[in-house]
Order: sequence, then structure tokens, then C-alpha cells
Amino acid sequence: MAHKRDREATRARLLECSRLRFARDGYDGTSVRDVAGDVGVDPALVFRYFGSKSSLFTEAMAGSSAPVVLPDGPVEELPAKLMHQLVFEDWSEYAGEHPLIAMLRSAGHEDTKDRLRQQVCEGYLDVLSQLADGNEDKNLRTELFGAWLLGIGILRTAVGTPTLAKATEEDLRPHLAAVAEALFGRPVPTDG
Amino acid sequence: MAHKRDREATRARLLECSRLRFARDGYDGTSVRDVAGDVGVDPALVFRYFGSKSSLFTEAMAGSSAPVVLPDGPVEELPAKLMHQLVFEDWSEYAGEHPLIAMLRSAGHEDTKDRLRQQVCEGYLDVLSQLADGNEDKNLRTELFGAWLLGIGILRTAVGTPTLAKATEEDLRPHLAAVAEALFGRPVPTDG
Repeated sequence: MAHKRDREATRARLLECSRLRFARDGYDGTSVRDVAGDVGVDPALVFRYFGSKSSLFTEAMAGSSAPVVLPDGPVEELPAKLMHQLVFEDWSEYAGEHPLIAMLRSAGHEDTKDRLRQQVCEGYLDVLSQLADGNEDKNLRTELFGAWLLGIGILRTAVGTPTLAKATEEDLRPHLAAVAEALFGRPVPTDG
Repeated sequence: MAHKRDREATRARLLECSRLRFARDGYDGTSVRDVAGDVGVDPALVFRYFGSKSSLFTEAMAGSSAPVVLPDGPVEELPAKLMHQLVFEDWSEYAGEHPLIAMLRSAGHEDTKDRLRQQVCEGYLDVLSQLADGNEDKNLRTELFGAWLLGIGILRTAVGTPTLAKATEEDLRPHLAAVAEALFGRPVPTDG
């Protein structure tokens, strides 16, 4: 039993350390040797636990105590909740960035790009597109809204433009209302 | 003279190959050895020509036959022209991505992040903010518009969401008009 507990603890620490490295340095910039070194184990153990660097990456990006999930509630409330999640939540476990933004750093790899696209489409856009029901280009409208939230998250964290880096959720609320209405073609509540 | 021409040709090929690698693999994922190998020269020559990997990166990202510059003309025409440049121009020299998007992949490094922020702010946002004159939060509005263009470019190229990946400039025009008016608080021409 103690053996199993040790194994679980080591596994958890490997995930935590690799998450930080993948977020900061990208997939290519992270080596299994570095991650093993952070935890003080042999690189062979990482391969034994996770199979490959790619599987380690998938598991590190998927699991977290603040998982990336679509918020509950009516679809009308999604824009405000998604802005909160993508832009304002505390992602310190991921070196301060939303995991999707961290994954972008590794999107030069086809398999990361596929996984990222799947997460963005199935995890967010498919549900969000209900807001654009009735428009023949509803998917385009939805992707354009998703692009906006993603871009705000990137300018705020990865680029650090001066005004967005300091903006509060309250500062963004009126603009969220205006852009959501412009794209979805109907008013969307933004009072959180 | 022949010697100097050879040197210039080698230098140009090193810049071209490193540009592709930096765009695809990020700063950390690119080694001087790989770039030298692409061109068939010794890595020491790369250091002799460029001084350091960081200088090679700066020069590769800055120089291109399709340089990243603010389009000419009245500020009112900038939104449509910037959307064209960021989203629809042919960036095949940068592995198909706008150089700013390629640079994002390396923005885990503080010096890349600083350079990226400087390029985004001084190169684009400072001029674009004239469109929001008269609003007390003009810089926030401008950054939010820049975030949108950046996000569209990223979803289209780095993530490859299905609708945006196939959209034409014509498809986006009405939405550009709606979002630009929502953010700048006044109509903006979008007929290219």
C-alpha cells in the first residue's frame, strides 16, 4: 500500500512539474530528462509511468485541480463565464496562462494542433454556437467570438499589453456586451 | 567580391531556414545546430555571422521579403487592412503564420515577450488607438480590437478551426464592420 501511495505521489509531482515546463517552454522546449530532474527521479521512470513524452503532455494538459470545462448554466450566460475562465481565472498552475493558450505554444506539432482544435471545437464552440442560431453563418460568428476571447487572453498574459494586463472584469463588461451582440446578432447578458 | 557574395548568400539562407524553424518549433525547439545543418554549414559559422541564437532569432523575425509594417493610408482604413495582413496575407515564408503569431510560440522567454509587446504596441496599437479618440478607455478598446484580429489569425492558422480556416475576406467583412463599430464606437469602412 505504501508503495502504491509513493507511486501516486511521484506521478502527481511529475504531472505538476511537466505542466509548468510545457506551459513555459512548449512541447519541444521541454525534455523528459528535465521533468525527471525536477522531481529527482530517473527519466526511465517517467517513460514507465506515462509511456511517452506525448502521453505525459496530454495528461499534464488535461488534468489539473482547475480543469478546463465548459461552465454550467444556460447558453446565454456562456460568453461572460467563458471570458471569466479564459481571461480572469487564476492559472498559476499553468505558469499563469490558460491551458489552451499554453498548448498554443506547442501547436507547431500536428498532434498537438489536432488535440487543441478538438478541445476548442468540442469543448467550447459547439455549445456556444447555439447563441448564433438563426444565422446562416452561425459557425463563423461563433469562431469569431471564440477568437476574441482567445486573443484577449493572449494579449493579457502571453504578450502583456499594458491596458489589458491591468484591466478588471468590470472594465471589460460593456465591451463584452457590445461585441457579443455584434457577433451573435442579439443581446447577451454580461452581468456575470 | 565573390567571397562577399557567397557570405551574403549563406547568411540569407541561414535566415530563411531559421525563420521556418522558429515559426514551426519555437525559440526553445530550434537549435543553431539544426539551422546550420539545413544550410550545410558548421554551427560555428552561424555564431560568427549572427553572434548568438537570440540575435539570429531577432533578425530572422524582423527581416523578410514581406515585412511586418503598418499599412499606409488613413487610420479609418487600418482595421480592414490589418485584418488582411494578419489573417489573409500569404505568410508561407513563416510556415504559413504571421510572424507575430509565430513569435507567440516563443513568448515564454522574457526577452521575446518584451520584443513582441513592443512590436504589437508601437507597431500597431499606438496608431490604431486614434480610432477610439474621444473614449476615456480608448487604449482598452484598441487592445480589445487587436486581440480580436490576433485571435482570428491564431484560430485560422495555428488551431485551424474548420469555418475560419476556409473563410474568405468577403465572409468576414460584415463582422469586421460590426465589431469595429462596437469597439471603436463609430462606423469604420470595411470595403478593403
